[in-house]
Amino acid sequence: MRNVLGNLITLTLFGESHGPCIGGVLDGLPAGLEIDSEYIKSELDKRKSAPAISTPRREEDIPEFLSGVLNGRTEGTPVAFTIANGDVHSSDYEELAGIARPGHADYSAEMRYGGFQDARGGGHFSGRLTAALVTAGAILKKALEDKGIIIETHIYELAGIRDEDRMTAEIKKARDEVDSVGGILETVILGLPAGVGEPSFSSVESEISSAVFSIGGVKGIEFGAGFDIARMKGSEANDEFAIEDGRVVTRSNNNGGINGGITNGMPVVFRTAVKPTPSIGRKQNTVDFSRMEEVQIEIKGRHDPAIVHRAVACVDAAAALAVADLLCLRYGSGYLLTKEDKMGSNK
Amino acid sequence: MRNVLGNLITLTLFGESHGPCIGGVLDGLPAGLEIDSEYIKSELDKRKSAPAISTPRREEDIPEFLSGVLNGRTEGTPVAFTIANGDVHSSDYEELAGIARPGHADYSAEMRYGGFQDARGGGHFSGRLTAALVTAGAILKKALEDKGIIIETHIYELAGIRDEDRMTAEIKKARDEVDSVGGILETVILGLPAGVGEPSFSSVESEISSAVFSIGGVKGIEFGAGFDIARMKGSEANDEFAIEDGRVVTRSNNNGGINGGITNGMPVVFRTAVKPTPSIGRKQNTVDFSRMEEVQIEIKGRHDPAIVHRAVACVDAAAALAVADLLCLRYGSGYLLTKEDKMGSNK
Amino acid sequence: MRNVLGNLITLTLFGESHGPCIGGVLDGLPAGLEIDSEYIKSELDKRKSAPAISTPRREEDIPEFLSGVLNGRTEGTPVAFTIANGDVHSSDYEELAGIARPGHADYSAEMRYGGFQDARGGGHFSGRLTAALVTAGAILKKALEDKGIIIETHIYELAGIRDEDRMTAEIKKARDEVDSVGGILETVILGLPAGVGEPSFSSVESEISSAVFSIGGVKGIEFGAGFDIARMKGSEANDEFAIEDGRVVTRSNNNGGINGGITNGMPVVFRTAVKPTPSIGRKQNTVDFSRMEEVQIEIKGRHDPAIVHRAVACVDAAAALAVADLLCLRYGSGYLLTKEDKMGSNK
Amino acid sequence: MRNVLGNLITLTLFGESHGPCIGGVLDGLPAGLEIDSEYIKSELDKRKSAPAISTPRREEDIPEFLSGVLNGRTEGTPVAFTIANGDVHSSDYEELAGIARPGHADYSAEMRYGGFQDARGGGHFSGRLTAALVTAGAILKKALEDKGIIIETHIYELAGIRDEDRMTAEIKKARDEVDSVGGILETVILGLPAGVGEPSFSSVESEISSAVFSIGGVKGIEFGAGFDIARMKGSEANDEFAIEDGRVVTRSNNNGGINGGITNGMPVVFRTAVKPTPSIGRKQNTVDFSRMEEVQIEIKGRHDPAIVHRAVACVDAAAALAVADLLCLRYGSGYLLTKEDKMGSNK
Repeated sequence: MRNVLGNLITLTLFGESHGPCIGGVLDGLPAGLEIDSEYIKSELDKRKSAPAISTPRREEDIPEFLSGVLNGRTEGTPVAFTIANGDVHSSDYEELAGIARPGHADYSAEMRYGGFQDARGGGHFSGRLTAALVTAGAILKKALEDKGIIIETHIYELAGIRDEDRMTAEIKKARDEVDSVGGILETVILGLPAGVGEPSFSSVESEISSAVFSIGGVKGIEFGAGFDIARMKGSEANDEFAIEDGRVVTRSNNNGGINGGITNGMPVVFRTAVKPTPSIGRKQNTVDFSRMEEVQIEIKGRHDPAIVHRAVACVDAAAALAVADLLCLRYGSGYLLTKEDKMGSNK
Repeated sequence: MRNVLGNLITLTLFGESHGPCIGGVLDGLPAGLEIDSEYIKSELDKRKSAPAISTPRREEDIPEFLSGVLNGRTEGTPVAFTIANGDVHSSDYEELAGIARPGHADYSAEMRYGGFQDARGGGHFSGRLTAALVTAGAILKKALEDKGIIIETHIYELAGIRDEDRMTAEIKKARDEVDSVGGILETVILGLPAGVGEPSFSSVESEISSAVFSIGGVKGIEFGAGFDIARMKGSEANDEFAIEDGRVVTRSNNNGGINGGITNGMPVVFRTAVKPTPSIGRKQNTVDFSRMEEVQIEIKGRHDPAIVHRAVACVDAAAALAVADLLCLRYGSGYLLTKEDKMGSNK
Repeated sequence: MRNVLGNLITLTLFGESHGPCIGGVLDGLPAGLEIDSEYIKSELDKRKSAPAISTPRREEDIPEFLSGVLNGRTEGTPVAFTIANGDVHSSDYEELAGIARPGHADYSAEMRYGGFQDARGGGHFSGRLTAALVTAGAILKKALEDKGIIIETHIYELAGIRDEDRMTAEIKKARDEVDSVGGILETVILGLPAGVGEPSFSSVESEISSAVFSIGGVKGIEFGAGFDIARMKGSEANDEFAIEDGRVVTRSNNNGGINGGITNGMPVVFRTAVKPTPSIGRKQNTVDFSRMEEVQIEIKGRHDPAIVHRAVACVDAAAALAVADLLCLRYGSGYLLTKEDKMGSNK
Repeated sequence: MRNVLGNLITLTLFGESHGPCIGGVLDGLPAGLEIDSEYIKSELDKRKSAPAISTPRREEDIPEFLSGVLNGRTEGTPVAFTIANGDVHSSDYEELAGIARPGHADYSAEMRYGGFQDARGGGHFSGRLTAALVTAGAILKKALEDKGIIIETHIYELAGIRDEDRMTAEIKKARDEVDSVGGILETVILGLPAGVGEPSFSSVESEISSAVFSIGGVKGIEFGAGFDIARMKGSEANDEFAIEDGRVVTRSNNNGGINGGITNGMPVVFRTAVKPTPSIGRKQNTVDFSRMEEVQIEIKGRHDPAIVHRAVACVDAAAALAVADLLCLRYGSGYLLTKEDKMGSNK
């Protein structure tokens, strides 16, 4: 449904970048699921990354749970949470009111919301909302981990470079040049049983891409060999099946663990393209749409030369939500509970 | 919702490849919309393509409307339609029962449906179901066209080749080699007003990718410069705004007409990666999962060496459904009616 | 979602009374569920009832399954079915075009669909569509029965009379007087475990009433003591709990087996008010809305003096769909399968 | 969808009675809609009613808007709000842990949530959550009022009595007797255009009843003449159409303004049965389900002898949400904006 992610495990997000807080409502979790605050915090920290690389906009992201959690375990009712916004420099943004920053949603949002949205800091479109996505996703990511399903996203390529040792240097170079860089993330999901997914419109690819494209800056997604598979011959692309240790496996994994929208038991693999941060300090030509005039701007404020590393936690979260939802559609939401959970209590 | 595409304009598909028919229920259309049978037929014909290139499995796809249409116009109630299946060679498929054809959904489906699905011809996962997708999509594609919104998909690359003159040769070569090729499609949507899309989970990218990934064989999607944007600098990637003929435009279109999940008025551009047809006549190593044995197979029957050109109409349909849904969310379903429609009648 | 019943087990209906057929798409069923054609037929027959009481519009309702069923068991994919319309006397209805039959949806539908709907025989609003509701509901009703959950609707009151022996006489009297009567149905659901339901907007009452109000002619629903409970004191209304045979029970059941929207293990009881058939042969004052003139009409054709008994199967179906959906939300759709189902196969 | 009300205008509620707050997320509102805090407050005050009648549990309900509102107008993004809980006497409830209070959801919830829910004060099932329903409903109720659509609920009957002067006395009598009373509310909706509603599963009755049954204590709903229509003859029940002042009207309104699930332009009328407050101070026989023992209890704390008058604002809210959603499905969400709204701004 509109603006809600998921079918059984559902997430609704809310909040503007410069409002009092952002937050979300996560529904459909079974009762008794452990909420691990430390784990959530570490996922949120990944989203912030090291100050050496990113800009020093240092907000302490600590989710406050308003409902649905009691003594560290879910109650089975909707889980609402907020994360306070802080460290806001409205003045950085107010002089940009009415101006379309290139690569940003200012103009689109003006046309969508007729001038009523909070333009400050990107309003509803700010990357800030991903903190809520990561919070909700962390709950599912941990639950899946406890069931042996591991989701792991890493930087596959940054600024066109595969060599990890050179990546940090590229980011610093971009900062020096008052520019920004993008990158490609790769996600591997291990331990997912075969038979998960709903063909047609709730295939594994549909569900994961729906979630991943909610992350700002994402411009592409590919599964398995992705766009490269389009250049292979069938004899080369087809993953031949085999039996190993009594299990059905494939010898290659060009299909990324998904056939016909349903998992086949092999690792699910996908890559996400993240564009370079649009906010750069250079002079840019653009328009003031409130006056319909062409102008030049320099965006003051604090700019991340790269958001790729910050997106790692976001993609993990998106994948966790999509995968958990599909598993629960298949097996019921009780699937998320471990034996220990089922014996536990929050009393 | 599960297995249903869309929020306001919704499509439910049903049917197995070797059942009596496939079909769909399209709901949310306003009353009075013209149903142009010729237009639908021409879209379905595109899906079949020329016999010179594809295999001669020649079914005449003529949708039969069971409800919701009266004298060539919608009644405003759910539109159900079926398309008869014909020209079925069950024997081609029955000896493959229990065998996982590489690149196909046989094993995944076995795990998903516990052995109860109709494996013949790929059951629910067959490309046949796209005939229903194209039928429903054609209705919206035509309505959008009449409103000045044009959706156009073409083959961007086939078998790694950009040159159109060489493409047909590549397909024939693949046929001769008893192999198959894939390709990349490019879709351009013109005339979409700015301000369309719902940020977060119903962004333009989320909605389009949800729909496109329902097409079998699709393994990737990218918007604007897509994966290439991940290799650009921000100064290069950012689309600078300008004013032309009193309208806001961008000088480049690396973002593919979408900012923050919402259209900005520029052409929406995306590319779809289609894998090579999995069914090839060559010997392939695989498993018989009913006996858990490794086997070799040669898939008899009629094989398309390429399905890329057939996917063109499917991607058009998927895009039309997604775009129409977002427009109606924004403006109400009456948006789809032209002045002539509003004055018309089906009595 | 709009025009779709259910969350996990979903039903979409389509069809107009005088189109070629009516039908539905039932999705979310697990693979391997037995489809008992005889059972479905007997439920459809209840919907028709004995000719002695009802009018002789005798259509043989035999559902044709288009998808999702193989060798008598579900495949786990969407189950689409149609029921042919026959025995149509268009001429009976055509002279009423543009006229608002009192108690019917002619005028409402004209305003809703702007004149594009098929007015003949009530179009989409005809009782005919309940044949599709009963077909889908029968599948779930049988599955629930096999799990020990019994749904039983009977006539509680007809034409204000409780005495069954006098009911048939009342119907015949109404026929003689060229009039019609209504009644109240009572439904009991036995064997439902405690803990089923989603508080707030998917409570047992919300789900059942949503489904039951889709049946034409229904004007009220009450649970347990219903409107009478509003006249009780708390000390009288409260159902005291007790322990019987090691189970928690209540000594009275004024709450109809539901507390806080969730079942408590006692029989779920509700009553449905069905208005008298609007089509009566008498002269009635009304308007011709195509000319905005007051007119008098006599509705020719075949009129049921009562539809109450025919609604019994419809309410059973509605309740079965709602209850099955809530059970599957709670336990997963595999809940519907018996041990025998799980060992069965459709191969 | 599960636990979400509405199709286009959607409401998600969250919160436990003894958590820090309750709240909701209201989505789908157009940008520019005025948020009238005074109006919302007055609706919330109605929900509390005069202390002379109700118990002195005096919480100041002031909604705090976390998102989607700027300078008193909606931004078009999700509107999240919370209402702080205060004045909590946990000790009143803790000794009841494990005990099934008759008429309450304690046992049902224990079975549903496996012991993980917050039993204190009824947890998620407390009437407290209706403060969030009323807040969201008030926004729509006001918007509808500004469009000339008036929703008005009043007490039709209390403790079996129709005479208003005697009602207060009945409530006081119940309090003296340490008992409680219920009642029947009647709601009239004026100004709704004809043609609103979606037949089948999103009929006006389905949508309103879905919303109304989310209010705790509601045990029945009837439209128009409701259960009485079941006792009428067709000649008596049918509402004859006529033309008055150039408009189509009906001479009677037994159908409550709804035919075939769609409005016909006459006032929509429905009645809601509210059971007597379950919490009474008398000795009651019940069970302690944690020990499976029969026990006697006396519920300490503060008890409302009647919640009927408090439910008036809740039913108004439920009706407003359902009606606004159906209107927006029909006309687009811009329908909710007045000319003044469209010219306004929140800048």
